[in-house]
Amino acid sequence: MDKPENSAALDVIMSRRSVRAFTSEEVSDEQVEKLLRAAMAAPSAGNAQPWEFVVIRDKALLDKVPAINPYAAFAPKASVGILVCTDPEYEKFPGYWIEDTSAATENLLLAAHALGLGAVWTGVYPDSQRVSAFRALVQTPERIIPMAFILVGYPQSLPKPADRFLSERIHQNTWSS
Amino acid sequence: MDKPENSAALDVIMSRRSVRAFTSEEVSDEQVEKLLRAAMAAPSAGNAQPWEFVVIRDKALLDKVPAINPYAAFAPKASVGILVCTDPEYEKFPGYWIEDTSAATENLLLAAHALGLGAVWTGVYPDSQRVSAFRALVQTPERIIPMAFILVGYPQSLPKPADRFLSERIHQNTWSS
Repeated sequence: MDKPENSAALDVIMSRRSVRAFTSEEVSDEQVEKLLRAAMAAPSAGNAQPWEFVVIRDKALLDKVPAINPYAAFAPKASVGILVCTDPEYEKFPGYWIEDTSAATENLLLAAHALGLGAVWTGVYPDSQRVSAFRALVQTPERIIPMAFILVGYPQSLPKPADRFLSERIHQNTWSS
Repeated sequence: MDKPENSAALDVIMSRRSVRAFTSEEVSDEQVEKLLRAAMAAPSAGNAQPWEFVVIRDKALLDKVPAINPYAAFAPKASVGILVCTDPEYEKFPGYWIEDTSAATENLLLAAHALGLGAVWTGVYPDSQRVSAFRALVQTPERIIPMAFILVGYPQSLPKPADRFLSERIHQNTWSS
């Protein structure tokens, strides 16, 4: 069953960083579809795929994001924003939607990096004010829960890979070893 | 800023599937370290990196997993189990740890696939019985929350890629469009 190690994929995982400064170049619809295909390839509890995505290109909407989340002040400079949401009605095993949509979001971020784009995850859920504000911004039904807002564009510069390895966070068989 | 598309990385994202049947070949310590390096390269709210990992190779422990989670009945056949946990004390922005540890878990699954290994995410949190049982199994302090249990081994066979793309889950600017 041996397969050669896919070092290009490991490189993408290890070198992905958050990108918050973008050029004016637009991300194409084809690229956005690749990002969403990657997101939807994520695992989910019972393979329920409980996600929904709102692709925001309307600058009038992106201009309103900094007032919703000051940590997303650069949103108006992004080419596109992707609001990752759940519809809890899709869940087969209730309560796992945060994990499912987070796995999808990480796939999306990695795919952006693989495409030479820059992206950043800005937090929405569980901040109830942000959840309500994004719901209002894109006019979702009340049952829809916005989980994260991802901004994507061409990076002004590529941050260097970070070494985040912490050997002390690894335990063998039991916590104390 | 253009960079060539890393299609090998996209392939790994698009072709990863859950693997639940393993050969008897053991995953090496070096491979496990690569998986954990990938996990720790994930983004987290405020870069808090609120994760801890328990690597379980002890067969006596793996044998106890099916009683904790019947959906992980194959755990004793895995070469290694990795319990992804949080220590909420690491959080800078409380409440985001599920998202952070889920992004780390997805990185781990993708890295396993990139290494030619097979892996599967089995659910722990928010099932309070499984959380308590895993906490007892590996003897964590009470504040530690086991989030997911990942089983890893050499795959008996590689499942074919699945097409999970659902165009109806994509909205443009607002929900109704």
